[in-house]
Amino acid sequence: MRAMMMECPLKIADILTYAAEVHPAGEVITAAPGGPERMDYKTLGARIARLAAALLARGVRPGDRVATLAFNNRRHFELYYAISGIGAVCHTLNPRLSPTDLAYIVEDAGDCLLFHDPHLAPLAAALPMPPGTTIAMDEMGLDSLVDAAEPLAAWPDFAETDAAGLCYTSGTTGAPKGALYSHRSTVLHALSLAVSLPKVFQERRRILPVVPLFHVNAWGLPYAAPLAGASLVMPGPDLSGPALFDLMDQTGVYSAWGVPTVWFGLLDEIAARGRCPTGFGDVVIGGSAAPPAMIARFEALGVNVCHAWGMTEMSPVGTVCHTPPQDDGAPEAARLHRKARQGRRLFGVELKIVDEAGENLPHNGRAAGELRARGNTVISAYHGRAATTDGSFDEGWFTTGDVASIDADGFLAIEDRTKDMIKSGGEWISSIALENAAAGAPGVATCAAIAIPDARWGERPLLVVVPADGFDEPGLRAHLLGALAKWQVPERIVCVDALPLTATGKVSKRTLRDKHAAGEL
Amino acid sequence: MRAMMMECPLKIADILTYAAEVHPAGEVITAAPGGPERMDYKTLGARIARLAAALLARGVRPGDRVATLAFNNRRHFELYYAISGIGAVCHTLNPRLSPTDLAYIVEDAGDCLLFHDPHLAPLAAALPMPPGTTIAMDEMGLDSLVDAAEPLAAWPDFAETDAAGLCYTSGTTGAPKGALYSHRSTVLHALSLAVSLPKVFQERRRILPVVPLFHVNAWGLPYAAPLAGASLVMPGPDLSGPALFDLMDQTGVYSAWGVPTVWFGLLDEIAARGRCPTGFGDVVIGGSAAPPAMIARFEALGVNVCHAWGMTEMSPVGTVCHTPPQDDGAPEAARLHRKARQGRRLFGVELKIVDEAGENLPHNGRAAGELRARGNTVISAYHGRAATTDGSFDEGWFTTGDVASIDADGFLAIEDRTKDMIKSGGEWISSIALENAAAGAPGVATCAAIAIPDARWGERPLLVVVPADGFDEPGLRAHLLGALAKWQVPERIVCVDALPLTATGKVSKRTLRDKHAAGEL
Repeated sequence: MRAMMMECPLKIADILTYAAEVHPAGEVITAAPGGPERMDYKTLGARIARLAAALLARGVRPGDRVATLAFNNRRHFELYYAISGIGAVCHTLNPRLSPTDLAYIVEDAGDCLLFHDPHLAPLAAALPMPPGTTIAMDEMGLDSLVDAAEPLAAWPDFAETDAAGLCYTSGTTGAPKGALYSHRSTVLHALSLAVSLPKVFQERRRILPVVPLFHVNAWGLPYAAPLAGASLVMPGPDLSGPALFDLMDQTGVYSAWGVPTVWFGLLDEIAARGRCPTGFGDVVIGGSAAPPAMIARFEALGVNVCHAWGMTEMSPVGTVCHTPPQDDGAPEAARLHRKARQGRRLFGVELKIVDEAGENLPHNGRAAGELRARGNTVISAYHGRAATTDGSFDEGWFTTGDVASIDADGFLAIEDRTKDMIKSGGEWISSIALENAAAGAPGVATCAAIAIPDARWGERPLLVVVPADGFDEPGLRAHLLGALAKWQVPERIVCVDALPLTATGKVSKRTLRDKHAAGEL
Repeated sequence: MRAMMMECPLKIADILTYAAEVHPAGEVITAAPGGPERMDYKTLGARIARLAAALLARGVRPGDRVATLAFNNRRHFELYYAISGIGAVCHTLNPRLSPTDLAYIVEDAGDCLLFHDPHLAPLAAALPMPPGTTIAMDEMGLDSLVDAAEPLAAWPDFAETDAAGLCYTSGTTGAPKGALYSHRSTVLHALSLAVSLPKVFQERRRILPVVPLFHVNAWGLPYAAPLAGASLVMPGPDLSGPALFDLMDQTGVYSAWGVPTVWFGLLDEIAARGRCPTGFGDVVIGGSAAPPAMIARFEALGVNVCHAWGMTEMSPVGTVCHTPPQDDGAPEAARLHRKARQGRRLFGVELKIVDEAGENLPHNGRAAGELRARGNTVISAYHGRAATTDGSFDEGWFTTGDVASIDADGFLAIEDRTKDMIKSGGEWISSIALENAAAGAPGVATCAAIAIPDARWGERPLLVVVPADGFDEPGLRAHLLGALAKWQVPERIVCVDALPLTATGKVSKRTLRDKHAAGEL
């Protein structure tokens, strides 16, 4: 029996219109040499309607891919809405990728127009774009388009399942593959994310996406923040501890979102200045597992840690972790233990863990298996590839490539990436568990564990450490023996100056494995 | 260009499954003679899956209408989810309607099964249901069905546009008409409502729907609260000030939702005891306009007032009103003035005001016109009636029958119901403005303004007052002359012991007009 309700397509532009009308005083604030620059949602609503008209005048049509090559700033936010608003596809490029990888991605996507930060002009020029199709995001480029245009009379209608955004995976497991988001998936993701973190997504809150806008929609913040009336603080390209501290302090950021690597710098700056940035109350850590020692450091400062997990293929947020009511009054250690898990699923994201035969495993916090996901915010296939020929899909579920457990309260814990697990003597060692144990030892700045071939055990762990003051290998080994089973403790520990990072700021274990194979460690 | 995302139907049962898994410690708490009874969402998830299986075993099929005749309690909540979860339609009946009206509605809806509160058995027996199709919501009735059933293996799939709920308008303007909600409209309404009130829709919060579950889904609370992990406190049939105070005090209700009439009783009880119920921090007032004097009384107690507006035809919430950031630091009077407006639209609800020619009016806080609404949570037609033959729809918009203005910050103000406006000498007098002015005078408990025929002016206002201590007609008249233009002040003021209420607790102006015509005042 069909209901008798209006059926209006969910559209990203409706978030902008809503913010401009209902939250006119909310702002996008961007770091700039002369101090943060501000523009409110009401002004942005009008400006973006002109930018959209300018894109139409340039000949951009529904379904066309328009690329951005930029860091986090207000013009990038404007392009998100203007491009998708007219039914085109906003394709965010990662400036940290090599020109070769970028050229592959631009051609695979078939981009027809490219907007870039002014200082990225040389990189933009190296990409295979036709002449006259690259535009700088500055006064001379993007702004002059806006100034010359009349605002759109109304945002056009189209199907909510139409494409709105395109983001390529970082390609750690092969050629980069595109995730092609819809208006429906993006709007539902924004709603579910906001509902899952009500203390963050409110009016009067200022939210800092350290996670780049070129990396899976900056975890959905450009949509969820204006929807809730929260302001966005855009850091630009400088993500150093001092730069982040100053920006947060000047703008009163409440909640800051990013990968663990950036937080080491901020924590050091906080330690150096002996205080937190004004108003800082919440940090969302994702992209890779937050070391328990990092969680404890933030919490000791009075900053609530929300551990999050997601994937490019999931729009991206799958779970967020904050203390549930049933933990109220629990000992600090128990609370921190729970916070080290990746948290509970967003509404609309279904998760299951399966054994090697594909059978469901119980959610008891102990059973670990391959993690699968399903929902409106999960891709059904990669751009231009059939799901059936791809090992990433199984009977309607996306196979994440993670090994995980889920506890009785619904808290997910990523045990490891499937490919990062170390199989020693027929038993699995989690590289993350090993890293977490080592990160808690004195004198360990950061570290990574990888598998190395071993004639007797098949594989053995190798621990790569960036040492800090007080590092002492026998002490670390003793610490590990106290935290892990003896057979899980690596025989080989090597020290390096820095860990190699991927273009999205994660530790590149592939590079570590390659280097080890080449004898470079 | 179609995106490459999974497309999973939005389903009400997914809210239940989510709450059971992610918010297992959230509760539905019901007033009971021996003290409040509690059941958590995890337990409810399992129980409702058995109830759903029992309904299937009784022969209920997708699209079948299953009626409820009950007040706010846990079993009513269970039926909401069990009925819609199997694709049937939960049809809530208002026990305060006359048996004649109820019989009409039951036949119009074609209900196949009826669940009722035990004490409503006589009313249930008076309705035109076939023998053996009425079931009491008690241990012997509903519980024995649950006990005998095995839980559903999985909630079935169907289109998100399928019908899930049915609620009839109160019929103040003619025969009752049914609003037939979908799974899509209900889930989107829950998400948007939760996002619009983040301080209410959180874990650890307890929310009291005084608004009945038989009245437009209790304003969406049975869906939005579990989605956000908040607990629900169900008051049963006793909505007196002392009963509400005790229940709120015992259970720590943070946010209470209802029509203005019930709050008079609670405010009197608070005055009598000299304190608020423990934890009470927020009240949501809707159904009819909250008198500014009531808003001021709550705010003086430190209870935040959220004025809300909606309609049966809108799922129902259209707007909610709380202080926007741009009012921070404004004088108290300005803040209260804004709070007397009905507030800002929910995401997904579009509003416009039009003049008599149907042309859009500006949102400047002064221009007032007929209010129209559009969106996924708005009906496209009444159950069993074509939209084209109904004056309630115009070019894809629902015509609300309200006269309203919208200010530059997006705040709606309902000036009046079109049919309640008083046209005197060619000029309109808002009955609500007149009532608000009178309610602020000493010695006025409650009041209502209606139009009476007048030979010279066409219509003139009549003010009906329920006097309290200190009432004095010349004093009231002087007060009105200070607040309104002279021609807006009524010549006739009459005193009554109580105002007649509709079955949904609003003042029945139709009854007042009828009584006046019959010379009964």
